[in-house]
Order: sequence, then structure tokens, then C-alpha cells
Amino acid sequence: MLQETLRKIRPLKGEFADRAQGHLDNLTKPKGSLGRLEEFARRLVMITENMKPLLDKKVIFTFAGDHGVADEGVSAYPREVTPQMVLNFLNGGAAINVLARHAGSDVVVVDTGVDYDFGDIKGLVKEKVIRGTKNMRKGPAMTRAEAEACIRTGIGLAETYAGKGYKIFATGEMGIANTTPSAAIASVLTGRSVVEVTGRGTGIRDDSLKNKVRVIEESIAINRPERKDPIDVLSKVGGTEIGGIAGLIIGAAAQRVPVIVDGFISTAGALIAYFLEPLTREYMFAAHNSAEVGHRIMLDTLELRPILDLDMRLGEGTGAALAMLMIEAGLKIYREMATFGDAGVSTEKGT
Amino acid sequence: MLQETLRKIRPLKGEFADRAQGHLDNLTKPKGSLGRLEEFARRLVMITENMKPLLDKKVIFTFAGDHGVADEGVSAYPREVTPQMVLNFLNGGAAINVLARHAGSDVVVVDTGVDYDFGDIKGLVKEKVIRGTKNMRKGPAMTRAEAEACIRTGIGLAETYAGKGYKIFATGEMGIANTTPSAAIASVLTGRSVVEVTGRGTGIRDDSLKNKVRVIEESIAINRPERKDPIDVLSKVGGTEIGGIAGLIIGAAAQRVPVIVDGFISTAGALIAYFLEPLTREYMFAAHNSAEVGHRIMLDTLELRPILDLDMRLGEGTGAALAMLMIEAGLKIYREMATFGDAGVSTEKGT
Repeated sequence: MLQETLRKIRPLKGEFADRAQGHLDNLTKPKGSLGRLEEFARRLVMITENMKPLLDKKVIFTFAGDHGVADEGVSAYPREVTPQMVLNFLNGGAAINVLARHAGSDVVVVDTGVDYDFGDIKGLVKEKVIRGTKNMRKGPAMTRAEAEACIRTGIGLAETYAGKGYKIFATGEMGIANTTPSAAIASVLTGRSVVEVTGRGTGIRDDSLKNKVRVIEESIAINRPERKDPIDVLSKVGGTEIGGIAGLIIGAAAQRVPVIVDGFISTAGALIAYFLEPLTREYMFAAHNSAEVGHRIMLDTLELRPILDLDMRLGEGTGAALAMLMIEAGLKIYREMATFGDAGVSTEKGT
Repeated sequence: MLQETLRKIRPLKGEFADRAQGHLDNLTKPKGSLGRLEEFARRLVMITENMKPLLDKKVIFTFAGDHGVADEGVSAYPREVTPQMVLNFLNGGAAINVLARHAGSDVVVVDTGVDYDFGDIKGLVKEKVIRGTKNMRKGPAMTRAEAEACIRTGIGLAETYAGKGYKIFATGEMGIANTTPSAAIASVLTGRSVVEVTGRGTGIRDDSLKNKVRVIEESIAINRPERKDPIDVLSKVGGTEIGGIAGLIIGAAAQRVPVIVDGFISTAGALIAYFLEPLTREYMFAAHNSAEVGHRIMLDTLELRPILDLDMRLGEGTGAALAMLMIEAGLKIYREMATFGDAGVSTEKGT
């Protein structure tokens, strides 16, 4: 299924960008003066191959999973916060709920690996692959089959929600300690040292940061993830939510649906997707520049320029929700502005 | 009236920031993890001195004026575009209309100095002080009394719209050639050379840019605007819409209403306001980093960090409309998120 989905992903066609830009240049504004808003409109046209795309149905997927490596003291918060925050998402009280409402987007909460039995609670997408990963400092976080199952979950959600008529996806996540596997993936896939890509996550102090770097270095040394094999990397030093995000991005690209990649952890998922199929990056929008050290390095590898830079480092999809408002602004410009002809406005005199 | 309004402006009180941050730190997220969104909420509380501010009524003021210096070939567009775009604003077809709708904001179009008789057209605020400034390369753009009248117009609008219950203002403008007086104001008030603060505006070529720099240098040399007297600067090398914006900002600060400053030209207005009363900057939000060269220098003088950086250079208030969405996001976080106690989420364990 994964290989079949990857084979469906096609490069974007420049002719759609040219046609979109032709329309943008005819609107009552100096050429190019709306900068990245015009870029967003062009890319939506290219991705959808539709000269009049619409973003009437939008959805943010917040994947949740626990991490065995939390036992190593790498997070400022106790592990029980993962299921507590899942319940907060379902009750509408978390930051992602507030910002998704602001952006007019639905939120879909997906349990890929929380170490808690939610029973038959309403509103949760139950795709639990495992009850938390194993401690990667002592061995692989997951088996290869489990990592593949997480990716398949993401692909399946992309297919289901494209089928329901959703026009844009965004990624988000929750999982205490999940900046740790994300930094491990970043180090292995970008080739940069662990210390360069490891930050304070929810806010650990200096000595804990040193410990976190050591834990990641040891996890990589023990597991020897194979850079050329992204699924090996995901299974050995990754997480279930990161796999779900990678799958969602792959599925989005296969369905020609634009996908907004949130912050540090989501971008680790994007790296997995990109190293499986580089064309996936053409379908991605990088939401923001996370305050988490190392995020910029990951975005540079993906050659993606973030839309926002608001010193945010929360995850959940919060940066993606705000970026969605900017992308939609670009589309509204494209769809709703008057042309020079319609408005009777004179064009450039060519100074 | 101006001196009286300036005397009303008070510094913000840190105690309101502390109380707002106390609430933010109790919401279900790591402390400070929403970065600038938290800053926006704190500043709204400080400005309004209201622990639960609301942004239910929002308005963008787009001031329009013509410029005699357009005769010097400093713009890529003919002068007739100013009234044509005013009509486009009134018909809802311009970029500012699209983005204001997206942000849930009203747009108020103010004629402070367009060289056109609009008759009794509906929807336009008629505060025409002059039919375009004079060519500043040959003498003062306006008289001192005319410059003061423009500022008074802005102050009056701030008072009227605060009275109508509007909770946040934004600035915008339209005026062919108005990056030229804005660069002149920037050079005089920041003390930087004309070449450092002069850009391509709507998109002029290299030789026209050289001419524009020379025109601004000569305008400053001929008029000798007095840096210590911002109204002298505004009258000699400014514009009516820039004066309107300065007045709106002064009026906003006097009324304790937050005001979003758009791009290059609006920031020239903000500099006039700031040099008349430095406390005005505490009431300003800098919307975005304009692609126009020199904007960053003006923002550095104001010690304001822009919210967005999307390579935009259109004006009208377009950057301010988008920034409004980010500021409101910060307020919604502050007002709508669950607390740790409400949601039953564990707090930091202190790693």
C-alpha cells in the first residue's frame, strides 16, 4: 500500500503556476506586490490543477502518541499529560481548538500510540498501533511493522478526508517527550550533529538539555538507524505520531491535497515523507519557524520557507492553524479581487 | 486640539502585563510556548486596562491623497490611479477589501487630499484638506496649517470610532508616489541617508530609482525640514494621508485603543506620531516587514518588531488586515483556552 501510494505522487506542473500568475497580474495591484500571498495562490492552483480552487473544508489532524524515552527525564512534563491533553482536545479547551476555530478548520484527534485506554470515548479516531513506543535508549522504539502501520494510518486518513471533500490538511501532534525522537530523526536524516538539532522542548533547563542530547546520541549509537531507509529511522528512533504525520503527508500528495506542516515534530514527519519520496515537498507548506532549535535546519533540508515566525513552540498544529489563515488570504486575493479592466483602473505606464 | 490630545496619552502599566501573564501561565500549554501570541494578549490588556478585552469591532482606515511630486516621474503608475483606486475601495474590489473581509474588519476610506472631485459619492469620508500636495522638489508640499488639519482629521476619526465602540484600529493608505514623501520623512526623522531608505515603490526600474533618490535629496535640501519639529517635516516633505495616519495613531493612543501600523507609508505616519509623543509607540503594533527598502530602519527607530514577513509591498492596510488576525488569535488564546485546573491536566514537574 505504501509503495503504491508513493508511486501515485506526481510533480507539480509549471503551466498551472503561469496561468495563475497571469490572473494575479491582472488584479488591481502592482505586479507581485502581494508577495507570498501570490505564491500561496499559485501553489494551490498547481497542487489542485484547478484554476479556481476553494478551501471550503479544512482539517487539522492532531496525532497523539507516548514515548518510552520519557523515562530518561527528557521532558519537563509527566507522561500522563499525553492522555490528559487528548481529553482536553476532545473537550475543545486546548490551544489547537481555539486556533482551529479562529481559522474555520475542523480538528481530528488521532490516537496512534497513547499509553492509555480511552474506552469508547466520542470524537477520537482510534488507530492505536502500540501503547507508547519502547525506550529507544535501550533498543528500537518500534518494530518495522509498527512503523509501517503508523504511516498507513496517515495515508488512510488522507484518503478518507479527501473523499469527504476536505480541500486542505494540516498536521499537528501531542506526545510528552516527542521532541526527543524528532531531534533524533532530524540528526540522522539531515546529517547534522545531535547538539545542533536538540532544543528545550516544553522548557527543560541546562542540565536536562545536556542529558537529552546524551540520550539521543546513545539512542542513535545503539540502534544504528539507516539513513537511506526512512522507515528504519522511524521505527528505531521515531514515534507513532511522527509516522502518522509522515503518512498523512504522503497520502495528501498522492491525493493532490495541500498539506500544512506545523512545527518541529511535524517537520520530523515531513522529513520521513520527503526521504521516502522527495516530490512530497511540493505539496507541503511550512507553517512557521518554531522557536525549537533545529527546526530551521530541517526546513533548510526540505527547502521550505516558513510562513510565520511568532516564537511559538507548542505543537498540536497551532502554527499550522495560523498559517492556514495566511494561505486562505492568498486564495481569496486570487478569487475575489477586481481586475484592472473591471475596476477601470489604469495599468503601469512603464517607468 | 493636538497638544490637548498629546497630553492625554499615558504610559502602559506593567501590572496589567503581569496579571495577564499570570492568566496565560495557567492555561494548558507550557509557559511562554505561544510566543508572540501571548505578547499580543498582554499588550491588549495593558492598552485597554481591561482584564478581558474583546475585539468585536475592528476597523481599517485607508487614507488617500495625491502628491505633486508625482510630476517628477517617481512612480510606475499615473496619478489618475489614486481616485480610481478610491472608487475600487468603495466598490469592494481592492486587496484591502478582500483581506478586511477575511479579518472580519470594516474598511473606512478617507479622502484627505485626492486631486479629484468625488461629488457626493456614498461611503467615502470626505475630509479633503487639499487637492493633492504641491511638488516638494520645488517647495513645501503643504502649509503648516494644512499639515495640522490632516493630523486633526485622524484624531477626530479615532475619537469618533472609539465612541462607536470599535476596539482596534489599523492604518492604510493609497496615493500614487507616496513612497517618495515617506522615504523623505524616514530619512529626516531617522537620520539615515536618502539612498538607504528609498525603494522601488510600485516597481520602478534602476534609472527611475536613481531619479527618485535625487528628487528626495533635492526636496530635503530645498525645504530644510526641521527634525525636531515633526509637523514641519510633515508639511514640507510629507503628504495628507501620512498626516491622517499620524493623527489616527495619536488619537488611538489618547483613547487607549490599539492601532496596527501597516507598511512603509503608514510607518512614516507612525514616525511623525512618535516624534510628537514617544508614548504613542506603546499603542502600536507593527503589522509586517514591508518588502520596501528602508521599512526595517523605520521600525528599528520605533523599536517595533513586525508581526508578519510575507514580502508584501502594496499598502492600503493589507499587511495590517493580516496582522489583525494574528493579534486576535492571541486574544482568543487568552480568553478561550482551558486552565490546567479546569482540564485536569498535570503541571510541570520541574525538570
